[in-house]
Amino acid sequence: MDEHIVLINCDDKKGLIYLITQAVLAQNLNIINNLEFVEKETNRFFMRTVIAGNLNQELLKNELYEKLPANAEIRIDKKRKKSVVILVSKEYHCLGDLLVRHHFGELRAHILAVISNHEVLKPFTESFGVPFHIISHEGISREDHEAEVLKKVATYSPEYLVLAKYMRILSNEFIRHFPDRIVNIHHSFLPAFIGANPYRQAFNRGVKIIGATSHFVTDALDEGPIIAQNVIPVNHTHSVKEMAKAGRDVEKIVLSQSLRLIFEDRVFVSGNRAIILE
Amino acid sequence: MDEHIVLINCDDKKGLIYLITQAVLAQNLNIINNLEFVEKETNRFFMRTVIAGNLNQELLKNELYEKLPANAEIRIDKKRKKSVVILVSKEYHCLGDLLVRHHFGELRAHILAVISNHEVLKPFTESFGVPFHIISHEGISREDHEAEVLKKVATYSPEYLVLAKYMRILSNEFIRHFPDRIVNIHHSFLPAFIGANPYRQAFNRGVKIIGATSHFVTDALDEGPIIAQNVIPVNHTHSVKEMAKAGRDVEKIVLSQSLRLIFEDRVFVSGNRAIILE
Amino acid sequence: MDEHIVLINCDDKKGLIYLITQAVLAQNLNIINNLEFVEKETNRFFMRTVIAGNLNQELLKNELYEKLPANAEIRIDKKRKKSVVILVSKEYHCLGDLLVRHHFGELRAHILAVISNHEVLKPFTESFGVPFHIISHEGISREDHEAEVLKKVATYSPEYLVLAKYMRILSNEFIRHFPDRIVNIHHSFLPAFIGANPYRQAFNRGVKIIGATSHFVTDALDEGPIIAQNVIPVNHTHSVKEMAKAGRDVEKIVLSQSLRLIFEDRVFVSGNRAIILE
Amino acid sequence: MDEHIVLINCDDKKGLIYLITQAVLAQNLNIINNLEFVEKETNRFFMRTVIAGNLNQELLKNELYEKLPANAEIRIDKKRKKSVVILVSKEYHCLGDLLVRHHFGELRAHILAVISNHEVLKPFTESFGVPFHIISHEGISREDHEAEVLKKVATYSPEYLVLAKYMRILSNEFIRHFPDRIVNIHHSFLPAFIGANPYRQAFNRGVKIIGATSHFVTDALDEGPIIAQNVIPVNHTHSVKEMAKAGRDVEKIVLSQSLRLIFEDRVFVSGNRAIILE
Repeated sequence: MDEHIVLINCDDKKGLIYLITQAVLAQNLNIINNLEFVEKETNRFFMRTVIAGNLNQELLKNELYEKLPANAEIRIDKKRKKSVVILVSKEYHCLGDLLVRHHFGELRAHILAVISNHEVLKPFTESFGVPFHIISHEGISREDHEAEVLKKVATYSPEYLVLAKYMRILSNEFIRHFPDRIVNIHHSFLPAFIGANPYRQAFNRGVKIIGATSHFVTDALDEGPIIAQNVIPVNHTHSVKEMAKAGRDVEKIVLSQSLRLIFEDRVFVSGNRAIILE
Repeated sequence: MDEHIVLINCDDKKGLIYLITQAVLAQNLNIINNLEFVEKETNRFFMRTVIAGNLNQELLKNELYEKLPANAEIRIDKKRKKSVVILVSKEYHCLGDLLVRHHFGELRAHILAVISNHEVLKPFTESFGVPFHIISHEGISREDHEAEVLKKVATYSPEYLVLAKYMRILSNEFIRHFPDRIVNIHHSFLPAFIGANPYRQAFNRGVKIIGATSHFVTDALDEGPIIAQNVIPVNHTHSVKEMAKAGRDVEKIVLSQSLRLIFEDRVFVSGNRAIILE
Repeated sequence: MDEHIVLINCDDKKGLIYLITQAVLAQNLNIINNLEFVEKETNRFFMRTVIAGNLNQELLKNELYEKLPANAEIRIDKKRKKSVVILVSKEYHCLGDLLVRHHFGELRAHILAVISNHEVLKPFTESFGVPFHIISHEGISREDHEAEVLKKVATYSPEYLVLAKYMRILSNEFIRHFPDRIVNIHHSFLPAFIGANPYRQAFNRGVKIIGATSHFVTDALDEGPIIAQNVIPVNHTHSVKEMAKAGRDVEKIVLSQSLRLIFEDRVFVSGNRAIILE
Repeated sequence: MDEHIVLINCDDKKGLIYLITQAVLAQNLNIINNLEFVEKETNRFFMRTVIAGNLNQELLKNELYEKLPANAEIRIDKKRKKSVVILVSKEYHCLGDLLVRHHFGELRAHILAVISNHEVLKPFTESFGVPFHIISHEGISREDHEAEVLKKVATYSPEYLVLAKYMRILSNEFIRHFPDRIVNIHHSFLPAFIGANPYRQAFNRGVKIIGATSHFVTDALDEGPIIAQNVIPVNHTHSVKEMAKAGRDVEKIVLSQSLRLIFEDRVFVSGNRAIILE
């Protein structure tokens, strides 16, 4: 039987769950999973409902728009794989993890292509049967480079862009094309060590724990809504290089965790915070 | 405004959430938090609803019993502190943590008394103004000892018994008086190292992680529903004694975590599993 | 048999371990534990040696100063409890944890007194038989307040000052009296959220993990050498208040962990990094 | 400059470090890292020393055998990559992680070949340029199957066998060919859930944490010395299948961690415990 995922967010008011479940029951369908959350600070209601059966999506959407508060956002879609394009530079660990999962059908997404400003990961990517495009940043302006990347991405029309250790800062212009649709893995436990060389920063600071953060990319560098974070212990015996090495395992796992949440339609964005219903 | 907590579990069927929210709306009240879960293996529906306002508890209960499946269990209560009696032996760390939280009003429960088979923790407990009763197990049978403990507990009529490192095994007879109401902290990561001397067992096995488990006490030794668990890393340099010492911090935190969940009415028992809605 | 702890740090050069073990053997004594580390960035050698028996401390010290590089720092002491004065404000959780451990002889230190700028924790502290001094900061300048605190601390001559949630920023003038001898617990995972209201900052940033950091206090606010850190997961359902509450358990455990390391003579300071030999 | 790793274990006695460092100094060489540990329960001394320069290995070995207690075991080798053969069945996640690391030169070992009782992972493995041999267990006895595997392994003469989710139990006869040289990843937090279907066991027990354990394979099923363990939180919403899925990320990371330790010559076996010097 088909499964449909309904994502609703709107101002909170009395009886919302009642209204929504009523509309689903009206089609004589069963809710097989329901998660809701009210963010007190914004008085905003978030709900993720999984419905089994022959849902008339348009009918439900129209009914809900009628009943729910005026500013409601409603997304209804069949449970299905998403489509992504991956951007990388030279590091292999996140890309490798994604390609292997993809190869065995466990990514919940189709990797349409990988784009890089370097050529080093081309043979590796292609051995998985995934197209790899090199768009070098050398000898051209940032604007021109981004324009080329954007053009190439456009040929694939992906739902999401995944920055799997893409070591270039994207312009606001670029980001605006993919609101809440670019996922980055940052090699540190944000908001500590924003910017370049986080492991060098972590070493100098003598921290006892390092981590990785996956977040949506917004205008502000490394400051978009956080989707997943994890950490591992380190100590004084770790050199910068060893911290970076240890950090890679966390990075790839955190990136995969965040993509699982996104591809399962569990992530809402509320201002600069991610609401994750699971 | 008063807050009421409604706990429902029953066989799952279509439209349960709708029915329940309808009954709440009928009293023109607002649901301020709602959590539900369907356990597929048992087809059982669990729901925890927080309602603000002048709830007519009897009315709601009667309506729900009418509408919900026949085997529904419904508990409705005001949000309030629970009452507990603590059983201990000689170790101070869990008791100390609970008494300090209690002293500063953060336990969400009243500690009515502490009962022990040893006298060592008496002055410490009494310095917090909490009654302490010594019921020695020496020179009497287990049955007689338990009977005395039971008699003393009965004078306090607590809702829960907390075994804060009570080093005696309770008989099924005793346990049956408090179904799903006795909470134990087990000094290991169950189901590893059931029974005595878990840290010696952990040392001999050369494990790299140790933990603690808080669970309800049932007939089977150390096998009741698990409420909370946590772990810490250890290594070959830890002696049995050092493992035990390191373990104590985990034990006291895990016990407190599980009590917070219980005292906030977040824990359902389904067979031998604890369903925790938070 | 007595145990002596020898702490050495000096420029690294060939044969240091040989020289040191030779000097110990010359007294016909046994090394029961030996830990060493060379920090490559500074080419600095650190060693912690535990010696059993009738050590002639002066003899060993003199021999080592002769043989080791000119800038060697050597500390030799019997294994013994340290002495501390604790500074607090209004929060009880770290103080409570320390007082309970102290009461049962497991702190590896004598708590000589507790000093606070508030009176709220006085009865609690005194119930453990520990002196409590109120030095209010109201109506006097920061300089005068610190001078009074300093005067009171001086009457106890403690080896360490422990800031167990002391919510006032100490002046460099004050800190200079206790170089690498003031231990602070910071209610966040440094270097994220330096300064005030870290849980509010963490909430606004939507982090998925919060933590606590114990560090030596130096001139720079919250930037001294980190001794211990730990974290716990949080999510979008945690309010600022709930984050703070969850954070308290981490804070008290991290502070205790760092004090154990310090009181066992396992912590060296190298620039702004703590080298911990265990 | 060459680096040599010296591994020593022998009965503990006074002056061992002195004797060993003296022998190294006699060749005018520098110790660049030194780690030692005395296991009190067995009075056994373990030491790992890294020496830079033109070491005369034979000379050092002979000198040490002369000076050290009679039962000393001494291994001296240049720092170099190890060689391994991997055994798998049908699951890809651990194999994938190892092949990707190997491909980018970060495994510290050469993967000579992969052997499987199933064919499913053949194209994937071969796409990395690594030989893949199918030795089906169907239609033949366990003895005959193992004999064939053994014969195939022998053609590669690997230093280590890695069981990367090899779902067959090896006979003692087989194991005896590779004492302390077979590394297994067990899909649970041993010693909990020994044997088959650990995630089903974990689900039934309602645990709140699951984990993975990497260990050397010995006669006793799942009871060899533990090298690395790690855990992740789960809860009542995880089905058996979801626990297994979540567990895979832990399994692959734990296996890689344990192999790093082994390939860096950091693991000693003492009875049924692994001593890990790092």
